[in-house]
Amino acid sequence: MSRSIPELLAPELREVVGREYVRADAGSLERYGQDALGIGHPPDLVVIPADTNQIAAIARLCDERRVPLTVRGAGTGYTGGAVPTRGGVLLSLERLNRILEIDETNLLAVVEPGVITGDLQRAVEAVGLFYPPDPASLDISSIGGNVAECAGGPRGFKYGTTRRYVLALEAVLPGGEIIHTGSKAVKNVVGYDLTQLLVGSEGTLAIITRVTLRLVPKPPARATLRALFGDIRGAVTAVSTLIRRRVVPATIELIDAASLEAVREHLGRDLAPRDTGAMLIVEADGTEAAVAEEIDVAAQACRDAGATAVALASGDEEREQIWTARRLISLALRATGLLKINHDVVVPRGRVPDLFAVIQGLRDRFGLRIVAFGHAGDGNIHVNLMVDRDNADERARAAQAERVLFERVVALEGSISGEHGIGFAKAPYLGIELSAEAMALMKRVKAAFDPHGILNPGKIFP
Amino acid sequence: MSRSIPELLAPELREVVGREYVRADAGSLERYGQDALGIGHPPDLVVIPADTNQIAAIARLCDERRVPLTVRGAGTGYTGGAVPTRGGVLLSLERLNRILEIDETNLLAVVEPGVITGDLQRAVEAVGLFYPPDPASLDISSIGGNVAECAGGPRGFKYGTTRRYVLALEAVLPGGEIIHTGSKAVKNVVGYDLTQLLVGSEGTLAIITRVTLRLVPKPPARATLRALFGDIRGAVTAVSTLIRRRVVPATIELIDAASLEAVREHLGRDLAPRDTGAMLIVEADGTEAAVAEEIDVAAQACRDAGATAVALASGDEEREQIWTARRLISLALRATGLLKINHDVVVPRGRVPDLFAVIQGLRDRFGLRIVAFGHAGDGNIHVNLMVDRDNADERARAAQAERVLFERVVALEGSISGEHGIGFAKAPYLGIELSAEAMALMKRVKAAFDPHGILNPGKIFP
Repeated sequence: MSRSIPELLAPELREVVGREYVRADAGSLERYGQDALGIGHPPDLVVIPADTNQIAAIARLCDERRVPLTVRGAGTGYTGGAVPTRGGVLLSLERLNRILEIDETNLLAVVEPGVITGDLQRAVEAVGLFYPPDPASLDISSIGGNVAECAGGPRGFKYGTTRRYVLALEAVLPGGEIIHTGSKAVKNVVGYDLTQLLVGSEGTLAIITRVTLRLVPKPPARATLRALFGDIRGAVTAVSTLIRRRVVPATIELIDAASLEAVREHLGRDLAPRDTGAMLIVEADGTEAAVAEEIDVAAQACRDAGATAVALASGDEEREQIWTARRLISLALRATGLLKINHDVVVPRGRVPDLFAVIQGLRDRFGLRIVAFGHAGDGNIHVNLMVDRDNADERARAAQAERVLFERVVALEGSISGEHGIGFAKAPYLGIELSAEAMALMKRVKAAFDPHGILNPGKIFP
Repeated sequence: MSRSIPELLAPELREVVGREYVRADAGSLERYGQDALGIGHPPDLVVIPADTNQIAAIARLCDERRVPLTVRGAGTGYTGGAVPTRGGVLLSLERLNRILEIDETNLLAVVEPGVITGDLQRAVEAVGLFYPPDPASLDISSIGGNVAECAGGPRGFKYGTTRRYVLALEAVLPGGEIIHTGSKAVKNVVGYDLTQLLVGSEGTLAIITRVTLRLVPKPPARATLRALFGDIRGAVTAVSTLIRRRVVPATIELIDAASLEAVREHLGRDLAPRDTGAMLIVEADGTEAAVAEEIDVAAQACRDAGATAVALASGDEEREQIWTARRLISLALRATGLLKINHDVVVPRGRVPDLFAVIQGLRDRFGLRIVAFGHAGDGNIHVNLMVDRDNADERARAAQAERVLFERVVALEGSISGEHGIGFAKAPYLGIELSAEAMALMKRVKAAFDPHGILNPGKIFP
């Protein structure tokens, strides 16, 4: 009666994966009990299978015993998607880490979910191909997690997010059935698109065990520019102007004054003169000629929108300098020692100025330090509430500000998450964006995959 | 007890949409009882609502009475998706035909489902924007049908199919609930991606009543080439070569010798010398400079693969001549007077030569006339079985050939449909591609949306 989950399941799980791959020591439980959000609940057991058949056996065991089963990629998410909410079994995909195939004729790769995204990118670039999705975590996050959360990144503006590159999946259902969705063909309209349904489903529908990814040719050339503006509105006008001139750069990153200030204060570096209100980084890629043309249009659009300075980088070294500036921001925010509550809200890009007005309103109303930067081409802005974790009052104000932010974003016809997913961190806010009917429908879809609700309970739904 | 569906429902439907928009005359029932496949079953009633609220009321009535409800766009599909299989109510979306919004800042359009795809394309191109999906039916098919079937077209190789352009949907569930999926933001990972699940669901899950589409800038330049080859293998080698040289043209169309022969025989036109085994049409688009570069690489790839002739069209008139050749094929096939059983199978592009070997095997084994052409970049080849509709034996041989074709395509890691969907025409073959587990899962998803199974019964599933 009172035997705990570990006692009940551990012997059987050991038979499936071998003794050394079932862990219940305090260190493992703590390590696998959190992600980049830094909040979580430890599992009762950690199991580290070697292949799909072992995963099917684990799923079947958990389903029979109604034990929560949380699947973990590299644990780099910001919303707790890979972290248990109430114990149970944590299944880590770290041993499924092989690139199985890079097919240069059909422009695709077949990989196991534990492959680190950056490793895949380097492998395909070595043969002149390109896997565009570039979440900031790409050197530490895994393809399986990227697919489960539908990761984005700066290049999403031109290339789309992870979703666009997933052709086919192998996945395990809670009952232990192994299903195959999609195919190696780039077009497929046979039955419902379960592939796209699984992308972004945050480990709540099935366990992804193999991923077939579409690749594109590696762009032969790229060029980057950095432009400074007196205020956010000028920067956004530049973005709108270049889009009206029908240019789609690979990347348009926007950095606000608070971000520049954080770098100044915490790293002692001046990325721009003190009166700078916003910085844009624009990168074009493609053929040599197209890149030259696009970056010129972008530079002119910045000047026409009142940029106070426009610097063009052609060589790799100059490019690197510009991107270093972007990376320093995250470093500076970490250096504050504050809790960084990172929200990846997204609005139609023409409404980015309204979003920044909302952010300023939150600063004024709640007395919070808020740093914002992100993907201006997409309207996907990372809004970082910087909070003293020992100050209960400030944390309470941040919680209030969060809700107001989400309500305003939805009122601007945007979305409360563009890249990070819902996990448990944003679950209480789902109803701000989705109607009761839509949520009820999603729960019925969930039940179609996972009738006993064992997969990643406590996620997505409030 | 014995009152028929029309008698039961007609008065209430008239109250919803007005007397003139409920039809039960023989002409209407016949007209709305078939699509481009030319086979079907008439509905008992045709209802032509004006807006989403009327559609919700119709859905609720049909759901309460358990009456089959089939939704029809422009009725141009090849698999019977918009045609009843056993009577019931046919809901035509023809009155929901407005372009509601073209947003040049956010690069999107909001349209009603009855808008003709070509009309939308012209409207957005007039302001320098571009809606890439280009099914052959674009001047007669509607956006709603394109979304429901996930229509493709020649440009799919570079630009992807309809799926890639659908940002958000308004849809009516069978119970009458109106749901909104996605948003105007180009990234959205809030809950399951119901938008992508509805794309390609063939009217079996919900009734799409409004579509928000992503647009891209209109490419400023394009160039087209036509290349002739001694055989299919040469043409496919050219395609692989240009892809290995890392070029992605907008379109790569492949036309086989049987297609050229059909034009010669039925229209008296010689599109190429008699010993031509295959024709390629390659079109590049983008900036002036990029287009020049890409089309040169493509021409060289064709020559290196042994093309017997390569002709480059730069002006609009020359371009038009090349595309006319492509369009003449469909005309010639119609002129045969034969039944054209058009299958849009798709294989990984490197396997297109294997697919053509399969097709030749079918000709030899079943004594059938088979004409094949299509989107070589995608591996999506339209295989047309040309059958005398009065010859029962030939029809039976065609049915056998069909099954063998589908089995071989799946063995080549392809898919039995790349663009046309399953409808009822391909439903018997679903099990060739999908496992029993995957089909069972899809049926549970169907039940999550449509518990009483009223929406488009007899479609997709065997």
